[in-house]
Amino acid sequence: MSYIAWIISIGNELLIGKTVNTNAAWLARKLTLLGYDVRRIITVPDNEEDEVEVFRDAIKRGVRVVISTGGLGPTFDDKTSEYLAKALNRKYVINDEALKLVIETFKLKGLELTEPRLKQAKMPEGAKPLPNPVGTAPGIWVEEDNTIIIALPGVPAEMMGIFENYVEPKLREIGPKLHFIERSITVKGVPEADLAPIIEKGMKMSNRVYIKSHPKGHEIRSPLVEIHVYVSSEDVRKAEDEINKVLDFLIFAVKEKGGEVLST
Amino acid sequence: MSYIAWIISIGNELLIGKTVNTNAAWLARKLTLLGYDVRRIITVPDNEEDEVEVFRDAIKRGVRVVISTGGLGPTFDDKTSEYLAKALNRKYVINDEALKLVIETFKLKGLELTEPRLKQAKMPEGAKPLPNPVGTAPGIWVEEDNTIIIALPGVPAEMMGIFENYVEPKLREIGPKLHFIERSITVKGVPEADLAPIIEKGMKMSNRVYIKSHPKGHEIRSPLVEIHVYVSSEDVRKAEDEINKVLDFLIFAVKEKGGEVLST
Repeated sequence: MSYIAWIISIGNELLIGKTVNTNAAWLARKLTLLGYDVRRIITVPDNEEDEVEVFRDAIKRGVRVVISTGGLGPTFDDKTSEYLAKALNRKYVINDEALKLVIETFKLKGLELTEPRLKQAKMPEGAKPLPNPVGTAPGIWVEEDNTIIIALPGVPAEMMGIFENYVEPKLREIGPKLHFIERSITVKGVPEADLAPIIEKGMKMSNRVYIKSHPKGHEIRSPLVEIHVYVSSEDVRKAEDEINKVLDFLIFAVKEKGGEVLST
Repeated sequence: MSYIAWIISIGNELLIGKTVNTNAAWLARKLTLLGYDVRRIITVPDNEEDEVEVFRDAIKRGVRVVISTGGLGPTFDDKTSEYLAKALNRKYVINDEALKLVIETFKLKGLELTEPRLKQAKMPEGAKPLPNPVGTAPGIWVEEDNTIIIALPGVPAEMMGIFENYVEPKLREIGPKLHFIERSITVKGVPEADLAPIIEKGMKMSNRVYIKSHPKGHEIRSPLVEIHVYVSSEDVRKAEDEINKVLDFLIFAVKEKGGEVLST
């Protein structure tokens, strides 16, 4: 069983650099902690051709979980649900359950059920709406072949609210039961290039632990490098042992090079 | 002539949600201001299969400018240059000009020319190195068919330094000579769904101006929506006239709905 995940970020505001894609980082972190292997984050504009293509591509490749953000709102270019139906070759229809959710929300708030609001109840045939605890647009859960596609709003609080309440529990249930464990050390006084052979040696001590250096200071004048060590494993104890073994080696080797380990 | 641009972000740290992709937003903004049409931002892991695939895909589609960030450092998994050579079916060789740059930098700083550092002088055959005013790894400029590929380091200060000094002037020269003009208004007291028909009308007033709403407050309890209006045009005067016409209409229509325009 593959546990590959993709994140699809929809919105021109990301492509003109108006908005930093914090949604993708938040979702990537969540999916990683659930044990999924996030292999792509793809940002596409609000248009049919690009959206349909990227959803179809994910299904064709058998990606297990696809999460999209954006395009569920009430304005003219919020068409993720419609394009998703097209990508799936399904009808784009009023979903009874979604309609109930939308009507309830509006009644509760004393709002009129206008055309742009009614649109939020339309989904690909066979989809399941996910209640929105923050706003009005429900999320969408739909499956095709071996792929689960989850469409969430782009407004961060709504995206997070739906994910934590209705997506995370299900993805945990069907997920790989892996634990993601990580540690960081910060090294002062050794340029990244001189850490490279140490990191390579550390990588060879374990075939699961991944080590990555993140330069923070000035490469030459005052090198400061974070070394991030992480592993996904079914067995927390074993994983911690492995990470500790690698960390002990890194700390030893860095000090031998004259480096100072600032924090672990 | 197409002026489509892609940004390719390379690095596991983005896919495990450790790092927010601020590089992509910065580059997207720069490219947009230069008049390019950023159509995709794709984040891939540090591995051969994904990197080669995405570079080849961009070339096959005739994307005009591809900018990648990440994978130019000295560690074992920094292999963007090597994979780029592979994607281009070119040899991965020591570049004389890059070697000079690298040696100069190291001499200046009194550093040894070790194997991980020498790697930074290796590039796809026919590439041009871009001097790094901040760190040691040069950027890469290489052309294939109608596509320009520019590989930059992932460290933000280095990426920005190379881009502003050596990439931006060239992209401006060969670019579409478009000016990107934008305005925002913030509207209080009208839910996004009630702004939707106004925005749609505004869009119909011009076939170039784009209008997008960004909900900021609480959708129902206290709606606060930024309306962002933008256009890319050869003629600044005309573009400003068009934007002002649309803005005047939006402000009028929003007030008619009982909304308060907080800022323009």
